Amino acid sequence: MLGPLKQSLRKPLLPVARWLDALGAKPNHLTFAGLLAAALAGAAIALGHPVLGLIWLVVGLLCDMLDGDLARLTPGRSTPLGAFLDSTIDRASEAFIFAGLLIGKAYHGGGAGWMWLLVWTLALTGSFLVSYTRARAEGLGTTCQVGIAERPERMVLLLLLLIVGLRHSGWFLLVSAVRAWITVYQRSAHVARQLAPSAETPPDAEIG
Amino acid sequence: MLGPLKQSLRKPLLPVARWLDALGAKPNHLTFAGLLAAALAGAAIALGHPVLGLIWLVVGLLCDMLDGDLARLTPGRSTPLGAFLDSTIDRASEAFIFAGLLIGKAYHGGGAGWMWLLVWTLALTGSFLVSYTRARAEGLGTTCQVGIAERPERMVLLLLLLIVGLRHSGWFLLVSAVRAWITVYQRSAHVARQLAPSAETPPDAEIG
Repeated sequence: MLGPLKQSLRKPLLPVARWLDALGAKPNHLTFAGLLAAALAGAAIALGHPVLGLIWLVVGLLCDMLDGDLARLTPGRSTPLGAFLDSTIDRASEAFIFAGLLIGKAYHGGGAGWMWLLVWTLALTGSFLVSYTRARAEGLGTTCQVGIAERPERMVLLLLLLIVGLRHSGWFLLVSAVRAWITVYQRSAHVARQLAPSAETPPDAEIG
Repeated sequence: MLGPLKQSLRKPLLPVARWLDALGAKPNHLTFAGLLAAALAGAAIALGHPVLGLIWLVVGLLCDMLDGDLARLTPGRSTPLGAFLDSTIDRASEAFIFAGLLIGKAYHGGGAGWMWLLVWTLALTGSFLVSYTRARAEGLGTTCQVGIAERPERMVLLLLLLIVGLRHSGWFLLVSAVRAWITVYQRSAHVARQLAPSAETPPDAEIG
């Protein structure tokens, strides 16, 4: 759904990627810069400055897009190690931003009631599990690129949440959590179909 | 370190596994029973009953050990799908228990200050990332069974936390968080060593 938006952002970013490349920047530098930006976003949100958090979040997202562009500029730079660091650090960035939301809500967003805490936890863990199910499926030799929860939409939800402020963040987290857990279910069902013994197998050979 | 403890538990559990097998139980049934037990543990902790939570947690751990035993009893039952569901549901169980800790601490454990919230978030996300780094590394065709944070020790820390109560849970979460993030670092470094181009590569070909 947001693919076209991302594509239209790609074009103006390409000269920036070329410029960074000329300066000698490596994709990994941008990956780590994105982590730093996410940590600053989390800290700003935790201290009750969601708009400042939003700005740092956008900086982090730009770093995240640029590291891919930069890697594609030079053949041989899109390495498995780059992919590993990129996904691991994406998760760590998410951890910082969610920590900021939690502390910001508790201290500067009217306090966090049990329903908000539960929804927040399900949004965070659901988001991690969306990535985990895919990685685990690929580790077991199958594929798993299915599900309704795409990262760009997740980021747009997060940006909207920061615009409306922490006081009304519950609904955005609820939408995130529901989308994520539906995707976890879709991915598990997809993996189950791919890895299950064929339908002709007698019931005794049921999978464990 | 806790391998021997786990091994000594295995022996008395084997007759139970055989009995469940005779009853027609499948490993997946136990995997889902373990998830249910974790959800009940989380609910008990959230409602301010850590000892009841501890009992359900132990039930969940036994289910978790028994599903593996049951899978090994019948050749051909240890399937990739079983492994996928087992690890995905382990993460979901952890999500429920952590949600219980958060809500229990906020409502029945003296309230959750920002330091506790930060440490709790780092313990949860660190624990997820320990599993994620391994799965992602295996998906990229390498291995990643390194690091100091083993699951049995993590569970013992959690059991101790529930015994001392939520009021003093911060230190246990801090130890969990530090162990988990050290392991994430160790695993990332291990993957970097395995996936990096050999040392003879000229500096221009630096990895992205």
